[in-house]
Amino acid sequence: MKDCLLVYSGGLDSTTMLYEYKDRIALALSFNYGSKHNEREIEYAQYHCQLLGIKHHVIELSFIRDFFKSSLLKGGDDIPTGEYDEKNMHSTVVPFRNGIMLSVAAGMAENEGLQHIMLANHAGDHTIYPDCRPQFVESMDKAVQAGTWNGVKLLAPYTNITKADIARKGKLLGIDYSMTWSCYKGEQYHCGTCGTCLERIQALKEAGINDTTIYQN
Amino acid sequence: MKDCLLVYSGGLDSTTMLYEYKDRIALALSFNYGSKHNEREIEYAQYHCQLLGIKHHVIELSFIRDFFKSSLLKGGDDIPTGEYDEKNMHSTVVPFRNGIMLSVAAGMAENEGLQHIMLANHAGDHTIYPDCRPQFVESMDKAVQAGTWNGVKLLAPYTNITKADIARKGKLLGIDYSMTWSCYKGEQYHCGTCGTCLERIQALKEAGINDTTIYQN
Repeated sequence: MKDCLLVYSGGLDSTTMLYEYKDRIALALSFNYGSKHNEREIEYAQYHCQLLGIKHHVIELSFIRDFFKSSLLKGGDDIPTGEYDEKNMHSTVVPFRNGIMLSVAAGMAENEGLQHIMLANHAGDHTIYPDCRPQFVESMDKAVQAGTWNGVKLLAPYTNITKADIARKGKLLGIDYSMTWSCYKGEQYHCGTCGTCLERIQALKEAGINDTTIYQN
Repeated sequence: MKDCLLVYSGGLDSTTMLYEYKDRIALALSFNYGSKHNEREIEYAQYHCQLLGIKHHVIELSFIRDFFKSSLLKGGDDIPTGEYDEKNMHSTVVPFRNGIMLSVAAGMAENEGLQHIMLANHAGDHTIYPDCRPQFVESMDKAVQAGTWNGVKLLAPYTNITKADIARKGKLLGIDYSMTWSCYKGEQYHCGTCGTCLERIQALKEAGINDTTIYQN
């Protein structure tokens, strides 16, 4: 039964969710909000949706580009390099980004008569991004249920597992992760040195996957 | 202390909130989402913000116009006429509209270092629009607090009062309600026959206000 809408970036986590739940996903939504790596991500999101025959829409959130400040956005400061920790990556926070994407997803799900929205947040996100934490996911679920006519529910089945656990799922599903995008810099190739590249490399290594991604450095 | 961001349509309720809390509102946000009455509302929102010297931004939500179905939107069915009840006005629901507007407001508040977002939902909205109900407001408040770095809070001080109560506040504040917009049809004048016009007329009458709005019928 196709009853789910996936918030789908085209990265490692949400691509795994797309494959794991492909029989339940009626619609995948990507968001163009002016991040440096938006175009790269969305290309891969389109590729996988086409491959799996899943309907895919891109939602323009131009106000984020126009008004919000973050190193993740075009025109913002440089993306930090080095390990992914709170101090280092705080500048990449886009205020309430997941809240905004989930709200749009909830409206869209109600509009399409779908019962669930899905987000691929995971345990490694929690300390850095407040809108990935379990408390946020739980209360956003309640808000979405209370605020929609048909009581849309939020599913976030990766909330308590790590990125390496997600990659292990992908290995079993036969996902080609070289066809996903992580690097926040959004250049021709993954930089291999920013927090999100290092985290990706580590997760694929832990999952015992032969990483064929091209890294600049 | 200017620590609030108001979700501001330019209608009777949120205009009253703008005046009542003018010393705390640093920024008012209007949303252009393709409703038939958007332009009319936003003109009045701009007028009052200019008058009170409050910063005002208009956020474009083009995906609602492009993807959502509602009689409230341009290209949708006709706005129903007659009393404002669930059966009659259900077609005017825009899925999770308040959730979407509040999420954008939360991101914007965090971005600007503001501690509160404000919504002028009231007791008369509850049965028809799920995203005006107290349960929604409470859980959205929790989601916004959990999902923002600085714990943005949602204030909705009109949740348990009626539109007539709001108009009574406006009378004391000296608000000229002929300079606000309610009619969902969005034509040159208020139609005077749709649910939202009838509700407006009734509230102003109950508050003992001489209603100088021009009504078509």
